[in-house]
Amino acid sequence: MTYCAGILVRDGLVMIADTRTNAGLDNISTFRKLHLFECPGERSIALATAGNLSISQSVISFLHEGVENPETGEVETLLQAPTMFRAAQLVGRAVHKVRVVNGKSLDEAGVKFDVSILVGGQIKGGAPRLFMLYAAGNFIECGVETPYLQIGEHKYGKPILDRAITFDTSLDDALKLGLISMDSTMRSNLGVGLPIDIVTMRRDALAPELVHRIEAGEPYFHDLRERWSAALRAAHIAIPKPPYRPAPRS
Amino acid sequence: MTYCAGILVRDGLVMIADTRTNAGLDNISTFRKLHLFECPGERSIALATAGNLSISQSVISFLHEGVENPETGEVETLLQAPTMFRAAQLVGRAVHKVRVVNGKSLDEAGVKFDVSILVGGQIKGGAPRLFMLYAAGNFIECGVETPYLQIGEHKYGKPILDRAITFDTSLDDALKLGLISMDSTMRSNLGVGLPIDIVTMRRDALAPELVHRIEAGEPYFHDLRERWSAALRAAHIAIPKPPYRPAPRS
Repeated sequence: MTYCAGILVRDGLVMIADTRTNAGLDNISTFRKLHLFECPGERSIALATAGNLSISQSVISFLHEGVENPETGEVETLLQAPTMFRAAQLVGRAVHKVRVVNGKSLDEAGVKFDVSILVGGQIKGGAPRLFMLYAAGNFIECGVETPYLQIGEHKYGKPILDRAITFDTSLDDALKLGLISMDSTMRSNLGVGLPIDIVTMRRDALAPELVHRIEAGEPYFHDLRERWSAALRAAHIAIPKPPYRPAPRS
Repeated sequence: MTYCAGILVRDGLVMIADTRTNAGLDNISTFRKLHLFECPGERSIALATAGNLSISQSVISFLHEGVENPETGEVETLLQAPTMFRAAQLVGRAVHKVRVVNGKSLDEAGVKFDVSILVGGQIKGGAPRLFMLYAAGNFIECGVETPYLQIGEHKYGKPILDRAITFDTSLDDALKLGLISMDSTMRSNLGVGLPIDIVTMRRDALAPELVHRIEAGEPYFHDLRERWSAALRAAHIAIPKPPYRPAPRS
């Protein structure tokens, strides 16, 4: 399993991904699922991937090596896309290309073509944007009403984002809330685990502000988990007891 | 969709179920999914159901009318089962009976035989017990290590239960935490909605302590939702900002 979240606020973008992969239940490994494509001062793009690792790794390799643009015949890499929309389209073409190359064999082996990708970033001349791509290469874009997108094991960590994130949330708070969301997921699903990769990009910096891997035992994240747990306990204790009393029954 | 939770603590049992059903996305209705079978002083059993409503309603009808015991040939209802284990077995036979009667037609219509049921309660001479039945009629029993079971849309509301519920949690707190878990689910999934049915049973009372339906606008539940949201906001605000700073990069 996997959990990745992208949060797009006024101040910029946060991307968070865990690193746990499993082939079956008993073959657990650590693989990077958060990938950075950057040209400081000109563009900064991060991709977070979920689904079949062989598919997502091939997509990333195609994005480095280049995918042909069917309209122009030119081979384009993610470092050449002129806008974030065109970058998302390119990622979609890379997904399609993997399907063309491997789809039939996967199908014959009974392996589902399962991949989803968050593409977030900013290219000079445009605003920071965040997209979520599906296995067909189609995609949706994050908007200000719901300023986050999730892939993978998304349900455990959704309530805190639904409650707390708005477009006006600061970049630091967005990162903090993303980590709380990741913590909720990790506690309830062993398929999601440390280390956690994070990237933040401040609007118009056109370079990552922070590229960091949180390893097991890292003090801040440990403290965040403890404080969050303690706060939740305190919060439910502070809520009055249910006033419901048995009604007279026939 | 549906969300139901059963919580089994030392003091007794809490069962909570929403009432929203949907046939497709645009046909939303309210149906009771929490059903009580009781004989005060002798037994108190509650069933919460998820899955295809036609299946779960047929199961409940069979449990009222009786299902044949293949070993004895006798027709048994839930009010006759001598133990909670035998009650769970009987529910399993009722599920099986619905499959025998309707399974082929459902299959031909392309409808999955989808049902899951929580069976919780106490019968004189035994302890309170809680079971979760699957569509094949097989079941697992709730234990003290993880003193809750969930069916339906369970992921959104799992983190709070994982963090806060232990076997020593009081019955009032178990109800409160169950309602918080329900609230988290309702906020993140429109397929789960008010009214909410709750039943609590105190150990050895052999009768429900509380049978209540929370309607939209009910003051306590509204207040719980507001307090919980406010507490979560305060909790994440109180957590220090991430200390991560950009490392010198090549």
